[in-house]
Amino acid sequence: MNQNKGLFISVEGPEGAGKTTVIKELELRLIDQGHSVLLTREPGGIEISEKIRGIILDPEHTKMDSRTEALLYAAARRQHLVEKVFPALEKGTIVLCDRFIDSSLAYQGHARGLGIDEVWGINQFAIDNRLPDCTLFFDIDPEAGMERIAQNNQREINRLDLEALSFHQKVYEGYQLLIERFPDRIQVIDAKQPVDNVCRDALHALTSLLDEA
Amino acid sequence: MNQNKGLFISVEGPEGAGKTTVIKELELRLIDQGHSVLLTREPGGIEISEKIRGIILDPEHTKMDSRTEALLYAAARRQHLVEKVFPALEKGTIVLCDRFIDSSLAYQGHARGLGIDEVWGINQFAIDNRLPDCTLFFDIDPEAGMERIAQNNQREINRLDLEALSFHQKVYEGYQLLIERFPDRIQVIDAKQPVDNVCRDALHALTSLLDEA
Repeated sequence: MNQNKGLFISVEGPEGAGKTTVIKELELRLIDQGHSVLLTREPGGIEISEKIRGIILDPEHTKMDSRTEALLYAAARRQHLVEKVFPALEKGTIVLCDRFIDSSLAYQGHARGLGIDEVWGINQFAIDNRLPDCTLFFDIDPEAGMERIAQNNQREINRLDLEALSFHQKVYEGYQLLIERFPDRIQVIDAKQPVDNVCRDALHALTSLLDEA
Repeated sequence: MNQNKGLFISVEGPEGAGKTTVIKELELRLIDQGHSVLLTREPGGIEISEKIRGIILDPEHTKMDSRTEALLYAAARRQHLVEKVFPALEKGTIVLCDRFIDSSLAYQGHARGLGIDEVWGINQFAIDNRLPDCTLFFDIDPEAGMERIAQNNQREINRLDLEALSFHQKVYEGYQLLIERFPDRIQVIDAKQPVDNVCRDALHALTSLLDEA
C-alpha cells in the first residue's frame, strides 16, 4: 500500500491516563480542522477479530497459555488492520487507534514476562512493517493513574488495587523501554494536566504530520 | 521441562504419501515393542485449539487474511503442545504428531508465499524451542501422490487436480528446503514402497532414539 496516504496514529498509556476521554476530544478537534477521522480500537467490530477476542476473554478458558494468548491478540490485530485500518488509510483518513502494538509489548512482553523482543517478533509479522506514523503516549505514573481510577469509582484504593499496582508499575516500565527504543515514533504527552491541555499538547505533537496530511 | 523425557516425533509429507495409514501402523508396532505411545494431530481435541480451528475453517470467513490464518495456526499449535504434547512427554510417552511445524513452513511459508523465515518466527514463538526430536518425512513426488489420491477416489485426475498439482509441487519444494535446513532432525523415508516397508524404514530411522528412550 501507499504509506503516504492517510495518517496512522496510535494512542497508548497506563490505566487512568484518561486516554479514552482525550482521544474522543482529539477526534472532534481533528474533524473541526476539516480532517476525515476514524476512531477505532481492536477488535473494532471486525467479525473474525471479535471471534478471536471471544476465545481470549472466555472465562472458561482457564488453561489458556500466555503464548497462545499473545498469538491470538496478534491475529486479531492483523485482521483489524486489513479490514478496517488499511482501507481507511487508503482513503486518506486519519486513523486514531486506541491501543496498538505497544500495549502488547508493554503488557505481555514486559509485564507478563514473555519478552519484548519475542512479542515484537509475532507482532511484526502481524503488522508487516506498518507501524503507526506516530504514537501518543499519555504519561501518568502508575500511582497517580490508580488514584484517578479510584476517584472515578468513588472508593478507596484497596489491597487488591495495591497488588495490581506492582503489575501496573511493570507495564509503565515496559512503556519506558519502548520510548527509549522508538524515540522518533513515540511522543510523550503529560497526561496529569487537565484534558484541554492534554489535547492541545497532543495536537501540537501531531502538527508536522498533520501539515503533510 | 526436561527435554530428555519421552520422545517427540512429527510425521510430514505431501498429500498421497500414505502418512495416516503408516502412522497408525507405526503406533501399533511401537506399542508391540512395549512403548507408551500417543498418536495425535492438531487441534487434537483441545477445546481452545478446536475453537481456533473453527475460526480458520469457517467458510463464511472469506476475508481471512493469510497472516491472520498463520497466527491462528500457531496459536492452536501452542495450546495443543501445552495441554496434550508436553504432559505426555513429561510422562515418558512417545508422541507421534501427524503434521507439525514443517507443514506450516512448507504450505504457508513456501507454497502460499508468506516466507519460510517469517512463518518460522511465529512458530518458534509458539513452540518455544521445543522442536520434535525427529521428523519423518514420507517422500513421494507430487505427481505420484496425486495419482494415489485419484486411485483411492476411483476417478480420473481432472483439470482442478492438475491446477492443484502446481500448488503441491510448491509444497514439495518447500519440504526439500526444510530437509536441507534441518538435515539432522528430518529423516527422509521412501513412501513409494508398500506400507510394510515404509514402516520398517521409519522404525529403522528411529532406532537410535528409541534405544535411548
